[in-house]
Amino acid sequence: MKHIFTLALLCFSLTFSAQTDEQAVETIFKNSLNNGMSYQWLDHLSNQIGGRLSGSLNAERAVAYTKEEFEKLGLDKVWLQPVMVPRWVRGAPEFAYIETSPGVTTNVNICALGGSIATPGGGIKANIIEVGSYEDLKDLGEEKIKGKIVFINRPMQADLINTFEAYGGCSSERYRGAAEAAKYGAVGTIVRSLNLRLDDYPHTGSMSYGDLPPSQRIPSAAISTNDAELLSGMLALNKDLKFFFSQNCKQLEDVLSYNVIGEITGSEYPNEIILVGGHLDSWDLGDGSHDDGAGCVQSMDVLRLLKESGLKPKRTIRAVLFMNEENGLRGGRKYAEEAKAKNEKHIFALESDSGGFTPRGFSFQCSEAMLGKVQSWRSLFKPYLIHFFEMGYSGADIGPLRNDEIVLAGLRPDSQRYFDHHHAANDTFEHVNKRELELGAASMTALVFLIDKYGTNTISNVEEIRD
Amino acid sequence: MKHIFTLALLCFSLTFSAQTDEQAVETIFKNSLNNGMSYQWLDHLSNQIGGRLSGSLNAERAVAYTKEEFEKLGLDKVWLQPVMVPRWVRGAPEFAYIETSPGVTTNVNICALGGSIATPGGGIKANIIEVGSYEDLKDLGEEKIKGKIVFINRPMQADLINTFEAYGGCSSERYRGAAEAAKYGAVGTIVRSLNLRLDDYPHTGSMSYGDLPPSQRIPSAAISTNDAELLSGMLALNKDLKFFFSQNCKQLEDVLSYNVIGEITGSEYPNEIILVGGHLDSWDLGDGSHDDGAGCVQSMDVLRLLKESGLKPKRTIRAVLFMNEENGLRGGRKYAEEAKAKNEKHIFALESDSGGFTPRGFSFQCSEAMLGKVQSWRSLFKPYLIHFFEMGYSGADIGPLRNDEIVLAGLRPDSQRYFDHHHAANDTFEHVNKRELELGAASMTALVFLIDKYGTNTISNVEEIRD
Repeated sequence: MKHIFTLALLCFSLTFSAQTDEQAVETIFKNSLNNGMSYQWLDHLSNQIGGRLSGSLNAERAVAYTKEEFEKLGLDKVWLQPVMVPRWVRGAPEFAYIETSPGVTTNVNICALGGSIATPGGGIKANIIEVGSYEDLKDLGEEKIKGKIVFINRPMQADLINTFEAYGGCSSERYRGAAEAAKYGAVGTIVRSLNLRLDDYPHTGSMSYGDLPPSQRIPSAAISTNDAELLSGMLALNKDLKFFFSQNCKQLEDVLSYNVIGEITGSEYPNEIILVGGHLDSWDLGDGSHDDGAGCVQSMDVLRLLKESGLKPKRTIRAVLFMNEENGLRGGRKYAEEAKAKNEKHIFALESDSGGFTPRGFSFQCSEAMLGKVQSWRSLFKPYLIHFFEMGYSGADIGPLRNDEIVLAGLRPDSQRYFDHHHAANDTFEHVNKRELELGAASMTALVFLIDKYGTNTISNVEEIRD
Repeated sequence: MKHIFTLALLCFSLTFSAQTDEQAVETIFKNSLNNGMSYQWLDHLSNQIGGRLSGSLNAERAVAYTKEEFEKLGLDKVWLQPVMVPRWVRGAPEFAYIETSPGVTTNVNICALGGSIATPGGGIKANIIEVGSYEDLKDLGEEKIKGKIVFINRPMQADLINTFEAYGGCSSERYRGAAEAAKYGAVGTIVRSLNLRLDDYPHTGSMSYGDLPPSQRIPSAAISTNDAELLSGMLALNKDLKFFFSQNCKQLEDVLSYNVIGEITGSEYPNEIILVGGHLDSWDLGDGSHDDGAGCVQSMDVLRLLKESGLKPKRTIRAVLFMNEENGLRGGRKYAEEAKAKNEKHIFALESDSGGFTPRGFSFQCSEAMLGKVQSWRSLFKPYLIHFFEMGYSGADIGPLRNDEIVLAGLRPDSQRYFDHHHAANDTFEHVNKRELELGAASMTALVFLIDKYGTNTISNVEEIRD
């Protein structure tokens, strides 16, 4: 009997709904490709504002700009969520060289890692010892390391198809390398850039001293992959060469910043929240177009595309531009804390933080049943070549929202070129393709549309009977 | 009984074969990503040779270079197949401007279309009339067209996911536009570049006068998309403006050139040929990295990767670098003619001519049963995110081989950025990503390996019992 009722409801809704799911998804993609706003917004964020490190003037300008753009969309609510963020500044440009004999030097490209201390004013010059991983340090022991610079030369694994997996295999070298090397008396660390390509760009990224007391901390920098190869080659010929580097970065006091939030309030279940987001802060070397200007403008466009496509969500759809993903995750943590304090019910959160490349699908942190539900929508995505719907990592900013009720998801774009640009001076607007960015925004909107329509209840796929 | 025998054979072959299919495919991908040659070969073709228009010195240098590289691989056979090719030359750089009033001019970016005649020595200056398609010409009629330049301003359709479909929707404007406009007395045609992006590069490509007598032919050029927008905007304000263009191209006598061919002879069925190929000629404006240096080096690497991966093909695997795809298809036609004359049996031909971008899968011209057979290998490709196996166009060079017996296939890379570079000065090496190129080579090799192992017989999937 219940089934007949369900069927009747379903027929009713099919007859009177404006568009079938196929048509709605088609409308979303057409709107994104024909009159999407994501590329125009990214142009402004990248070229009129630029790199947006937490606590910088640019980060504040980005907060003001995106809030203003949200306001132009005629959303139901737009607001700023205050959050205290760390403020690390790079200072004067870094400088480094290899000295093979007194006065015979070769300059190399380095950049300070985010969170590192400066070198002493005149820089550091010392012998340098190469390791494949910080885990090799214990075998070498203090005797061989003390007083030297440690060079951690671990290339990303080229034959992994998912380049984020290759990144994961090396990122702790960057994050923990200095703290570990300091324990053996090293005076600095130089870490091979996390880049699959050989080029001249050093790639920054966060590092941490863990619980190492300030007096024991040593400066840490990344070296470009070409120069890592050069240094390794020169060391093979001459173990006694010296390495010089100088950097002037420092950690200042925390400052006030904001998550930027826009919302379309749900027509039927306003208390059930579907979140889409990216992070508004970026590293300072490039303009943060792929990481993560792309995710921000795509999230903004999800709200705009829903409106533009005549889709009125039943649930509340909230786009959140998180502050401080790169060096603190304060925005993500703050958002989750406040959501919990207010007893807000988030049923779904989707992050785009893997670059603005051609979208391939989504990864999910959810039950098998929910994954099956999403996979049942596969045919709706097929015309757009969106094929990947698997379990996997979602995103850093939405991670703190995790609980038993929420479904977390991450946009999965093609990842082959991402680490060519990640955290480097060439993460810039001209490396984002308009169509690829727009296809990502459309894919996200289509998934949000389906989640809104069918919910995350997996007991039955028919939303209407859930009560 | 037959089934039991088959099963026994299968078990035998599984037990004693060196690698499972999964392992073989994994080995191929690892070899391509860790020590592929395709990128290095492309670097040479693009940066040491450059654009390779049929009949040019560069085309001949590319023939010599690729033959030499084939020879280094220790193949069973390497040879050149002579073919007469057309020789069209661009001459001095083209020049064009919009004149809004006498002496008030704005320069615009154009390039002659391949096959076009030159303008008279001093160029052509005339009024210009905009149409959306050459099909609009008959409505306008001779009265409105005679003595004018016709401006065909048909943008590629942005909301098609397969950008080749968008290209197909406009390419006859470029190919036939001048011949059609000449019939109504036009003195020249300017065609909007076939580019989905707005930028300053004019994109060349072939055009034809059909059976129009030489005396009635008019010069034809492409204009960059930015300048097409500019010209259209200026025409909206002032229908009387004049357009000037000058070009110096000409068609010379046919010259001798070559298809370059390398082969691994099959160990069991040497007379069954599996072909992989791309085209060695390119347009002259860029260095032809995507179109189709990529397809050539990937095809070369198919042979190398099979050897490198310890896979000894049962059938003959032949890599063919076709000459003159861009403006004549003489190489493809010649190859098919000779194959027919020699009664060669080609069971499969795969072309890569859609750019060196991340591979998504393959399109096939074959029976439904054969497509089903290929789709049964889907799980082997899944770890590499190769998901597209559908009916569709294969490639121009292998088209002439078509008959009832052969299976034709085309590599399908991500196509979103292809037309940003296609036939333009920015089809250059730095726009090819090493990993993306290598993934394409590996995908092609994996498909060739499976076709070689299991054949194209669809009566049974078990190769061994086919006799």
